Parts: sequence; C-alpha cells; structure tokens
Amino acid sequence: MTPTQALPAVLDRIDADLDQSLERLFAFMRIQSISTDPAYQEQCRAAAQFVASDLGSLGFAADLRPTAGHPVVVGKGGNGAGPKVLFYGHYDVQPVDPLDLWETSPFAPRIASLPDGRKIIVGRGACDDKGQVMTFIEACRAFKAVIGSLPLPITMLIEGEEECGSKHLFDFVKANAQELTRDFALVCDTSMWDSQTPAITTSLRGLVYEEVKLTCADRDLHSGLFGGAAQNPLRVLVKILAALHDENGRVTLPGFYDGVHELPPDVRADLAALNLTAEDFLGSVGLKVPAGERDRMLIEQIATRPTAEINGMIGGYTGQGAKTVIPSQAMAKVSFRLVGAQDPQKIRESFRAFVRAQLPADAKVEFGNFGGAPAIELPFDNPALIKTRAALSAEWGRKAVMVGEGGSIPIVGDFKRVLGMDTIMVGFALDDDRVHSPNEKYDLTSFHKGTRSWARILAALAE
Amino acid sequence: MTPTQALPAVLDRIDADLDQSLERLFAFMRIQSISTDPAYQEQCRAAAQFVASDLGSLGFAADLRPTAGHPVVVGKGGNGAGPKVLFYGHYDVQPVDPLDLWETSPFAPRIASLPDGRKIIVGRGACDDKGQVMTFIEACRAFKAVIGSLPLPITMLIEGEEECGSKHLFDFVKANAQELTRDFALVCDTSMWDSQTPAITTSLRGLVYEEVKLTCADRDLHSGLFGGAAQNPLRVLVKILAALHDENGRVTLPGFYDGVHELPPDVRADLAALNLTAEDFLGSVGLKVPAGERDRMLIEQIATRPTAEINGMIGGYTGQGAKTVIPSQAMAKVSFRLVGAQDPQKIRESFRAFVRAQLPADAKVEFGNFGGAPAIELPFDNPALIKTRAALSAEWGRKAVMVGEGGSIPIVGDFKRVLGMDTIMVGFALDDDRVHSPNEKYDLTSFHKGTRSWARILAALAE
Repeated sequence: MTPTQALPAVLDRIDADLDQSLERLFAFMRIQSISTDPAYQEQCRAAAQFVASDLGSLGFAADLRPTAGHPVVVGKGGNGAGPKVLFYGHYDVQPVDPLDLWETSPFAPRIASLPDGRKIIVGRGACDDKGQVMTFIEACRAFKAVIGSLPLPITMLIEGEEECGSKHLFDFVKANAQELTRDFALVCDTSMWDSQTPAITTSLRGLVYEEVKLTCADRDLHSGLFGGAAQNPLRVLVKILAALHDENGRVTLPGFYDGVHELPPDVRADLAALNLTAEDFLGSVGLKVPAGERDRMLIEQIATRPTAEINGMIGGYTGQGAKTVIPSQAMAKVSFRLVGAQDPQKIRESFRAFVRAQLPADAKVEFGNFGGAPAIELPFDNPALIKTRAALSAEWGRKAVMVGEGGSIPIVGDFKRVLGMDTIMVGFALDDDRVHSPNEKYDLTSFHKGTRSWARILAALAE
Repeated sequence: MTPTQALPAVLDRIDADLDQSLERLFAFMRIQSISTDPAYQEQCRAAAQFVASDLGSLGFAADLRPTAGHPVVVGKGGNGAGPKVLFYGHYDVQPVDPLDLWETSPFAPRIASLPDGRKIIVGRGACDDKGQVMTFIEACRAFKAVIGSLPLPITMLIEGEEECGSKHLFDFVKANAQELTRDFALVCDTSMWDSQTPAITTSLRGLVYEEVKLTCADRDLHSGLFGGAAQNPLRVLVKILAALHDENGRVTLPGFYDGVHELPPDVRADLAALNLTAEDFLGSVGLKVPAGERDRMLIEQIATRPTAEINGMIGGYTGQGAKTVIPSQAMAKVSFRLVGAQDPQKIRESFRAFVRAQLPADAKVEFGNFGGAPAIELPFDNPALIKTRAALSAEWGRKAVMVGEGGSIPIVGDFKRVLGMDTIMVGFALDDDRVHSPNEKYDLTSFHKGTRSWARILAALAE
C-alpha cells in the first residue's frame, strides 16, 4: 500500500487519535525547557529525551547529540522510495515572565475556548514550537499505525537553543553535514495566512548592515565663528541618506535591483487576492499608509521587495535646549533587506561607492560592516513545493498561498549555504497565538488540521 | 581749542605717558575680579571701585550701582558740543584654570617679548577687557591733561558680569534707559583684522534655533517585519533637512533671504582685499574648503551671509553593532544665523511650514523654540562710523576694514532693541591673544596705538 493509498485511513486515524495526540503534546508541554535560563538545563535535557523516546517509538533511530549547549535530537527513520527529507524544529521554549499575566500556570497545559468559539491549547510552547513539531510527529505516528512504517525516509533535527539564538547549531550542522544533507528540508515554525488560509513561506529576506561615520573638522566648532564656512558632517550625511530613495520609494543605489525577481503573475495574483490592507497591517502600530515603493502592494513591500532603512543616526548636540555647535562627526546605521539573488557584497560595495561619490571636500568616511546574508528564495517550480501546496490546499479547502517573510531565519540560511539544501516552511501558527508572551496558545484546529496537513504532504512527497 | 586742534598734543601726551598708563593698567590687572566665582566677590567690587575712582579723577561723576550680582560702574562726564556717547566695557575677567599652564602668576602682570620681537602685556585681563577698556580711559585722560576736559559728553557703563553671561545687565539697562540712551554706543571688546589692520565690527549675526521632533509609529518596529511598509522618521527627517540647502549652498526656505542686504561694492572690495584664505581660516581646525554659498567669499560666508546649520540629530539605534530597528522618533536641532533685516519670527514660521509641507502621511511633528534674535547691522553711511573709520585709518596708516561677526554680542542687541541705539565696535585684540586661556596677552602696540586710536576717534566724533 503506497502512502497515497493509505492516506484516507491515515487521516481517519489522526481524527480518532486526537485526544491521545493532545495528551502527548501536553506531556511535552509540561517539561519546562526554557533554554536561555541555566536553571532549566535539566528540563531542557528532559524535553530532548522526551522527543528522542517518542521518535524511537515510531521506529526512528533517535539519540541526543551533545553540543556546547543543550543537546540536539537527531532521528533517522523510513525506508521508502520517496525523497529523503530533513525535518527541523525545536524543543526549547521562551521564558514565561511576567508570570502574573498568565491566567493559568504556563506549564499546566489546558484546552480553553475563545469568545468566538475557537478551541485553543493554552500554555508555553503550545504553538512555538512544541505544538508545531508535534503536528509532524503525530502525522508520522498515524502512518506508522496504518502502514507500519514512515511514508518516506525522514531525518529529524530537533534542537534546544532556538529561543536563545541557536548559537551552537551552525557548528553542529557543519560537523554533521553528511548525515543532515537530505533532498530538502521541512520546517514547521511559521504561520498560516489567516485561520482559514494555509501558507508556505517560500522566501526570507537577506540583510546588509552598514555603519557610516563622517568626520569633517578635527573638533566641534562654534557656529557663530565657523557657521557658513565649515563643512558640517550632519549636513553631508542627511544629503547622502536622503538620496537613498527616489520619489517613488525606490532605492537609488546603482545595481541595487540586480537579482530581484519579479513574481510570476499567478503568484502575484494570489498575493493580491489576500487583500492585505494598511489598516490591518499598520493600524496596530499607529500607522496608516504604506511607505515603500509606490507601485508595489503592501504585501510585496514587506516580504518580496528589497528595502533600505536608516536604523539609527547621531551627531552634534542632542541634549536639552540649544547649543550652536557644528559637530566634528556624524554617524548613521543603514541596513538593506535583500530578496532573490541580490548579492550582499555587491550591495555593500555599491552603498560605499554611493556614499564616497557624494562626499564633499573635507568630509572623511569610515564604514563598519555589521553583517550580511543573501536572501533565501525557493523557486516556485520546485516539485516538492508544488506537491506541498496541493496537499495543503486539499486539507484546508482553500488555495495555500506562497508568502515571503521580511526577516531572516538563520537555520534556513545555514541549510542553504552549508548543506546546499532548500527548505519548505509550513506552519499553522496564527497572528493571535501570543508567541513569546503570556497565555501562548495554539488553535485546536491548527493542531488537528496541521497534523492532517503533514499526512497529506508526506503522502504527496512520497509519490 | 577744539579736540581736533588739541589732537597732536593729546597724541604726544599719550606717547609720553605710556609707562604711567601701563602702571595704571597693571594696577587694574592685579585685582582678581573673577566674576563667575563667588569667592572673588570682594575683588570684583574692588575692580569696580578702581574704575570709578579712576573715572572720578578724570572729572566723571562715577559711582557703583548695585545689581543682584556684581555692581555696574556708571560715569558721566564731558560738556562739549559733540554727540553724546555711551562707552561699554567690563571689569571682570575669566577664571584662570588651569593655573599650572601659566608661565607666571595670572594676576602679576608683566611686559614680555615674543620671538618675533613684539612686546606684550601678559596676565589675566591684559586684553579682555581691562586692557581694551584702559585704551579708552587713557585717551580720555590725555584729553583731560591737554584741554582740561573730555572732548565730548561721555557716559561710561562698565559692568562686572560679562564673563558669566551679563545676567543682570539687561534689567539694569532697561531700568536706567533714560540715563544710558545716548546718540550711539562705543564698545571696545573686539579684534583687529590683523596686527597691522584696524577693524570696526559693523554687524553681528542674529539667530533662530529650532528643535524638530518627528514621530511615526507609536513604538520602535522590527525592520524584518515592517521594513518597507512602515514610515521611518529618520528617512523623513534626512529628506527634509537635505532640502534645506540647494546645490549652490543657498538656503531654500521661502523668504529666507528677505531683508538680506548686498554689501556696497566698495565695502565688498575692501573685504576681498583682505584675501582671507581657507588655509588661514579653516586650516587650524583640519578643514580646507569653504562649505557655504558657492558664489560668496569665505569672509562673507562667516560674517555677512545668513546660514542654516544642523546642530544635532538623533534617532534609532546608535550603540555598538547592529539593531534592525525602525525607530518611532527622530529629532534634529537646526539653527539659522541671520543678517541684515531678516525677521527671526518669519524665518521660524517659514522653517516650520517648510517641514510641515514635506511631511508624509504618518509623520507627526513637534517643534521646540530655543531662541531667536535679529541681526545687528550698522548702516555703512552712519556718520559716526565714517568718522571712526577715518580716524582709525589715520592712526594705523592702513584703511580700517568693516567686518561682520558671525555670532552675537548680547549687550549690543540690547542697546539696539531696548535703547534704540547703534553701536560702533572697535577693538585692538589679536587672534593670538589667548583670551580666556592661560598666558593671556595684549600687544603693547595694541595698548599704545589703541589709546591713540581712541584719541583720534573722540576728536573726530567731537567735530
């Protein structure tokens, strides 16, 4: 029986097993695996052991691998003919402060109901990432129950330091590259578009971060004496930074848009159909009008288009009252979010050349490099992506959307750059899940239909 | 005998009396009249009494007038037919720290020689302002000796708080307006152009000081999530401030140049002939190229033309390293130096309108007013100025230049605005006088020819 042939029975099994699935998730959630606080070191290890044991019960060869921090769980299972996949998630959770804002104990998981009738799982890790990881593991369990094995070869990589910067994972991945390099990776740590619309995150923006420090005179000057004749580095800097965008919000750096791909019309149409409004997205932070490229939809501005931002700036007198100083120095921090095949090094060089070209006499510049990484972009014609999308759409009865995320997820960059491996990001979180906050929750529907989604995805991928 | 007829004898008398003049100056300089330090309160009073007694010996009706701080010396003398003049100076001096940098005790005045052969008077107050004040008093003394009286009606106003902000003088001037309002004022607290070229300061720039604070989102935002869509107040602010100057260095505020007078061709030619070079003026602070209006001489840029400067700016993350924040707020301090008849209030309003006109949606602005004062400008055809210039030129054998000063001198503004009185500023300080610093000095030539200059000026004014 192929996984696809078994799928109806697997889905039935998931439905019938929901209560037991929840019991297992609750057991996982009761472990106080706060990775950033050394006081919880043993609990982190216990969470790793919980995962390894559970994987072992499904036929995985699973064990705890030491790192300089909390252990990583690696499990290997499945012998089918399908593609070899790597699943990544994390067993650690965020701290629970402020504790007095929790309605019930963060490590005493429970089912509750929202005023609109939605049932939710409440507790630390309900969503991030214990609930999400368990959707994948429960799908595996259902296959094991129905066909006696996993539907395809699966390697599990469940780390314990995601909430404190994954600081030992990069080295671990590099040291275990052969074992972890599979045909592609699956990650369950992202969100749905909304509670009815499943989503696949197909791109993550990259970053170039620069510091620019200008120096003119060798000391601060009095504007009564020197004002009018002495070059003012703040004046130079505002002129240069003001020239970074044109009147339509496009970045003016030469070559900046090299490697930026236009969305295929159908993908763009899907994004347009989501109708993300400024009111919905910006209203919660007191804004009303999208400030990016004028000819781009808001959803493009925040996810699939590159940006230039001034993250900080300082110079001269900034205290109370007046001081008529012409400063000697001025500094700005400028960053660029990258998409597609934009080359961080070329953009850094273009920015520096852009600044230098506008420097008047008497202004000297120093640059500081505070990081850079290219964007991650999964090709829209990736066969696994197409199968995943169809499977998700079938489960939710609505076309799954392919979205970009504005920020980076370092491990996905590592998979690409260290292992040469693409990642398909599917998750069932919702915007109101209060991830990292008191009273974190995960919709019961996210958990249940998330598990069913993975069953469908695994069957589709195994074909 | 008119003052002009007496002038040759008066000048001879000054020459013959030089040693005694120095003794009187030294006696004045030995008084430790540091106004800013309460420990020297009695010494300040002693300096005031010294001045009042000396004026009394010349026939002035002089006394100490109390203020909430150190007393003001007012002296009234002279009965001639000439114009009534008010002479302003100050008897207080700067603190002497750091004491260990003085080659000899600051209050033990002495004559020394510079390597180039110039003889100098060394000690605190040698120039600022005891030496300068005594040039005027010694000129009066010579007239008294030769013709038995002052050459014209003179009111003396010698204050004791100039070095700590003249904080009680404005009220004193206002309260004694009738007594102090003369035809015009003379001030001896400025510099020569160079050691051979006398100068009259005919203008002082005014000031408008504004703070601009922009707010966009109601909190700092993460550029991964909001970058591209959220309005960034730093981006808005650099765009507005970059637009303050055009490519030729002119200020772009509508109406900004209203009231700015062009220099008469002859005055401009005199300034050009001074040939102030960027190397001379900017070289000492590490700069090379004048940064003001392209079509203006350096000497115009720093003295007779209005400016706009960004004195300070801050927003977002300014610490070490990288933070991908889109700040909620950004602030700048912006000041304008004014000349001629520029109206501070109109320029403030024009600036605020300029900022508001460029505000995009989602950017709110708050302004702070940190002061404003119009420029002071003595008309070039002022008869007293013309006479003063001729007298100075005759003494030094070189045409006296009329210069503008880039900053303000508050008392001169008060004379104009409170008493409706113009001021002619003549002084004999040199750039290397180390005013306010250890080893303050005054060239013996400044003192001697300064005294002779005042004799010539008073004779000319009396005509």
